[in-house]
Amino acid sequence: MLSNVRIVLVETSHPGNIGGAARAMKNMALGDLVLVRPQRFPDPDAEARAAGASDLLTSARVVDSLDDAIGDCQLVIGTSARERRIPWPLVDPRAAAERVREAQPGRTAILFGRERTGLSNEELHRCHAHVHIPTNPDYSSLNLAAAVQVLCYELRMAALASSAADQSAQEWDVEPASSADLERMFAHLEDTLLQLNFFDPDNPRQVLTRLRRLMMRVAPDRMEVAIVRGMLTAVQARIGSQTDSAP
Amino acid sequence: MLSNVRIVLVETSHPGNIGGAARAMKNMALGDLVLVRPQRFPDPDAEARAAGASDLLTSARVVDSLDDAIGDCQLVIGTSARERRIPWPLVDPRAAAERVREAQPGRTAILFGRERTGLSNEELHRCHAHVHIPTNPDYSSLNLAAAVQVLCYELRMAALASSAADQSAQEWDVEPASSADLERMFAHLEDTLLQLNFFDPDNPRQVLTRLRRLMMRVAPDRMEVAIVRGMLTAVQARIGSQTDSAP
Repeated sequence: MLSNVRIVLVETSHPGNIGGAARAMKNMALGDLVLVRPQRFPDPDAEARAAGASDLLTSARVVDSLDDAIGDCQLVIGTSARERRIPWPLVDPRAAAERVREAQPGRTAILFGRERTGLSNEELHRCHAHVHIPTNPDYSSLNLAAAVQVLCYELRMAALASSAADQSAQEWDVEPASSADLERMFAHLEDTLLQLNFFDPDNPRQVLTRLRRLMMRVAPDRMEVAIVRGMLTAVQARIGSQTDSAP
Repeated sequence: MLSNVRIVLVETSHPGNIGGAARAMKNMALGDLVLVRPQRFPDPDAEARAAGASDLLTSARVVDSLDDAIGDCQLVIGTSARERRIPWPLVDPRAAAERVREAQPGRTAILFGRERTGLSNEELHRCHAHVHIPTNPDYSSLNLAAAVQVLCYELRMAALASSAADQSAQEWDVEPASSADLERMFAHLEDTLLQLNFFDPDNPRQVLTRLRRLMMRVAPDRMEVAIVRGMLTAVQARIGSQTDSAP
């Protein structure tokens, strides 16, 4: 899906932002960058900010009109900071990424406007939907590269979710303990605590219930259960030898 | 919720990144920034990158140790780029933000490591969970400010969803333990296990690390910590009396 997404920067003023956008794209495995009438490009500032993503600058296409940038796209989403006089379908970055996913295998363009003034109304009207990043109302001036970062991140999250719907299980080094393992551990714990005279005579179950809740919540693996039981056995060995030596 | 989230930058090399992080935070309405041993701060480069967010730099707290940064936090999440030998609970930024939401009204710290080397293993072991931004495997070098941007964006999305939805936060009967509470518990545990001669002489840290992972994963409440420490004290009392009665 990510190879079908194009990032379009319209009339960018600062070449450093183009470099930062390229880096953000490559970090999230996007590669198709189109620049509409950039003020300065190519430029050393763009190269410097791109760091290891200068290959995206080399392959970026520079065009004279928005038509040239988005003509072949089947879904066009424009970033918008402001509310418009005529409301347009407005989504947040997550819903925008979902739209892109649903549009596969069609080609999508995400448009980013000028640093100061954003996209014009005419440009916004070329879009199927607008996307708004929900910034702090008291400080909404998101840097252009930061905005690209957020959108590309959501696109990547959507791509990963769709490619790996199965592998929800996290890698872990040890198999989870079985219910029977856990019950044996709780019995062992209760025995040991009895030998320690640990229980409150007024409410003997309270402590055990809380310890059980703790362990059930964490869902320990087999080795963790083995370590806990090893500790209990070590305690019992010491208590036992003490009891034996008592008069 | 966002006022309960602290961003902690550990040994940042480039002050520009501190400024970029401050801007990313303020864009998403976060305000609590703590710097652990920054190489250069305050610094004009930080001010320049912060743009309109220099108030966050002014109020940022500079501390000498991670303890000073997170001691009062009830949930600690560390950013991690690499796989570890002993896997730790690992979440993506969205799930991390969800963890933070569930932990309300507890205070959370999100830790970001050094530009080149990230967080140390010891620092990562202070965390309840690790968060990994799912970058392009072929180009994973996310700029520090960009990483802060992604996490703060997800935190803001979770905060907005949580204030919009009905507060379905889970009821819990006891306040979560603080990071300092947990460290005292681990020290107590280590002392007790030493007295029991429980450690494998060939690999004494392995068991402690696994027990630490278990307890960090479950994020115990204050009463649970008190029960565990009560058990340790009971064991020590018996071991002590046994040792006293030995010849």
